[in-house]
Amino acid sequence: MPDNGAAISELKTLLGDRLSTAQAVLHLHGENETYYDNTPPDAVAFPNTTQEVSEILKICHAHGCPVIPWGVGTSLEGHALPIRGGVTIDMINMNKMLTVAAEDLYAVVQPGITREELNTELRATGLFFPVDPGANATLGGMTATSASGTTTVRYGKMKDNVMALEVVLADGRIIRTGSKAKKSSAGYDLTRLFIGSEGTLGIITELTVKLHGQPEAISAAVCEFQDSTSAVNAVIMAVQMGLPIARVEFIDALSIKAINAYSNMTMTECPHLFMEFHGSESGVAEQVQRMKEITEEFGGGGFQWASKAEDRNKLWHARHTAYFAIKAQRPGSDGISTDVCVPISKLAQAMDETIADVEAHGWNAPIVGHVGDGNYHVLFLFDRNNPEEFALAKDLTHRMNLRALALGGTVTGEHGIGIGKMKYLEEEHGEAVNIMADIKRSFDPTGIMNPGKIVAVN
Amino acid sequence: MPDNGAAISELKTLLGDRLSTAQAVLHLHGENETYYDNTPPDAVAFPNTTQEVSEILKICHAHGCPVIPWGVGTSLEGHALPIRGGVTIDMINMNKMLTVAAEDLYAVVQPGITREELNTELRATGLFFPVDPGANATLGGMTATSASGTTTVRYGKMKDNVMALEVVLADGRIIRTGSKAKKSSAGYDLTRLFIGSEGTLGIITELTVKLHGQPEAISAAVCEFQDSTSAVNAVIMAVQMGLPIARVEFIDALSIKAINAYSNMTMTECPHLFMEFHGSESGVAEQVQRMKEITEEFGGGGFQWASKAEDRNKLWHARHTAYFAIKAQRPGSDGISTDVCVPISKLAQAMDETIADVEAHGWNAPIVGHVGDGNYHVLFLFDRNNPEEFALAKDLTHRMNLRALALGGTVTGEHGIGIGKMKYLEEEHGEAVNIMADIKRSFDPTGIMNPGKIVAVN
Repeated sequence: MPDNGAAISELKTLLGDRLSTAQAVLHLHGENETYYDNTPPDAVAFPNTTQEVSEILKICHAHGCPVIPWGVGTSLEGHALPIRGGVTIDMINMNKMLTVAAEDLYAVVQPGITREELNTELRATGLFFPVDPGANATLGGMTATSASGTTTVRYGKMKDNVMALEVVLADGRIIRTGSKAKKSSAGYDLTRLFIGSEGTLGIITELTVKLHGQPEAISAAVCEFQDSTSAVNAVIMAVQMGLPIARVEFIDALSIKAINAYSNMTMTECPHLFMEFHGSESGVAEQVQRMKEITEEFGGGGFQWASKAEDRNKLWHARHTAYFAIKAQRPGSDGISTDVCVPISKLAQAMDETIADVEAHGWNAPIVGHVGDGNYHVLFLFDRNNPEEFALAKDLTHRMNLRALALGGTVTGEHGIGIGKMKYLEEEHGEAVNIMADIKRSFDPTGIMNPGKIVAVN
Repeated sequence: MPDNGAAISELKTLLGDRLSTAQAVLHLHGENETYYDNTPPDAVAFPNTTQEVSEILKICHAHGCPVIPWGVGTSLEGHALPIRGGVTIDMINMNKMLTVAAEDLYAVVQPGITREELNTELRATGLFFPVDPGANATLGGMTATSASGTTTVRYGKMKDNVMALEVVLADGRIIRTGSKAKKSSAGYDLTRLFIGSEGTLGIITELTVKLHGQPEAISAAVCEFQDSTSAVNAVIMAVQMGLPIARVEFIDALSIKAINAYSNMTMTECPHLFMEFHGSESGVAEQVQRMKEITEEFGGGGFQWASKAEDRNKLWHARHTAYFAIKAQRPGSDGISTDVCVPISKLAQAMDETIADVEAHGWNAPIVGHVGDGNYHVLFLFDRNNPEEFALAKDLTHRMNLRALALGGTVTGEHGIGIGKMKYLEEEHGEAVNIMADIKRSFDPTGIMNPGKIVAVN
């Protein structure tokens, strides 16, 4: 029989002030970036060390009290909502970079460090951590949700960039997975099992991540297209030709309009590609030239490129604020930020059919995408107090998911399952979901680890 | 109570001639590439379809009869030895390439196809499958052992190049993992859990693998060094500078001598790097030039490069026959082909200490390595009937493993655990091995899947 009260009382003794039941703190940890109701936990713990996380888990395990790990709360499918109550474990005090092994191109960090903090710390080393989901998420959160983002087309996703983990298990045991070597075939790959497990199998307390050398030269470029199909087809050709583009983002006309308004810019209101090229001076120049030729083949125009850091930063800042820019178009609205990924040859079709579906209902919805990976997002803005509009947003999202599956894709390229996509997991994986449930039960027999997420077990 | 006889009798009814108990067939499937005694199975099954694999598993599951998947038997740690008897499942009839999606850069293949067969099939498409462990292994075997090899420094390992799997579980259920999209965050990563599971969790019956475009230009190069430390340090610098070298293999003086004799070549008997560069014409020229400068900085000489396919093929053929060339130096001997991987900055130290250890015992042992990954192999040749020599080979291997762990590395970069490295798994992973055992029990409660490999559960 779960006894959250007894657990919290013991946690108070363990943590003192670092166990909070203040309403404001509970409310903050009940928030989410999507349309779910605020769902506060019973308490929030702020551990300082792995050993404390272990002690917290032992107490919660003994009392059957749910535990929900928390980074900065930027996830988009309700991953960190304590839907069955319990204790949220906020990792903010464990936000240090512990080691930089510059010669071996890795860093050991705590889970509460954000990607921007990490890259600031790394500045003097000439190295950087590439994965960039847009939001300034924590490394622990990015690992738990199996994040990726703008640079994944070149540098990979979290699964490619996390080498080793320290994890506290449901019963408080501390394990280490992976190694500092670039590869290993030693036993089952627990590292990649924890990546994307969304706090349902264990709590990440330390990560070893790959670093990459700052490229000798970087150029950014923007290009305008008459329609989204042409933009996407240009990307498909670039990818198929093996052009090692470092970033290639699609931003549709609606998003450009929102960004113009939000960031005080004056881009033509048409579909755009935002691109970045990394390499040697001559390599980058060659890539830019090739990409320019490809975009021209698909009617792209206004191709502009910028190698100054200031100009590049402005461009990517605009891209990263797209979500907020779009939401600002309709103040007070709620949003569903969708996330599907398809084989790249199917991307134009997937996007076109979705646009047609949206327009057939007399609506519009901005689209942005990490198109080099076949990954795109639609942001549906709606008034939650308008049941028809809410239902339509959910229906369109539903069909977008099924369309991705029908085209051989996945219902989530990078946002994860959380509570929002649980119903699609079986649709996508069939019988394999029962195996996932077996794994969940094996790791977490009492069901305290972020219960009700990814896969239903009780 | 296991009843292999009853299982085999039912399998005979199911498969007819494709279930063999002929001594020659059993002997062949009891062989291995290392020093273990021939250990024949009780029978060998040759399924034609996934459905048949499922039927076989159901029968074996019902009777508690061990099943051992078999590719072409090139693994190096006794992975495919039926040490508890049972039925070996030879996947040779399931060796087709099923689909090539050239525009999406993937192929769907059956597990029995070898990497050379796959690349021959792909020739007309302009695409290739890069992972190259040396041996002409099957894709199923390479997945099961989490293989990598000469091109991993640029194109990644099996874990990076397998997108999706079809797997038959212990009880005959058929599941599909992953998707055809380039990335997914949908649930636990079962694909990577099966990669490297060595047949202990399920039998792979279909794979979706990434393909890569044939580069516009390829150059190979060789360079001579006065000592192994200098060669390794040149590689370390190239990797740290981010030079996108496609292959960089270290071959020591003893191996060069053996290759000269075996392949009728006349290389200087000193440490060499064999390299390959992929890219555009100008990109490759730039890479070659930079690498030449780096090697010169470390006293490298005789830098020669070849862009003709014929010359390149000769070089890589020589590299790939190194194992046999070395064994031919001492006909009738047995060999231990070791495999450790360390953070690259520790590679020179790891190799130097190993060489010193070998020489301190008045012995010599050739070393080759995928040095760009920090991965190296020593081949100990010994006479199994000489207990002292056999013990020394095992002692030296033992210390090489502990040395790799002490330097933050792994006891296997690419060969896997099999039976040869089980005792080091806990040394490397500690408490996490208990979690691996839990996973094993969850997937295979009756313990029929390649029992006695990776992790001990009963």
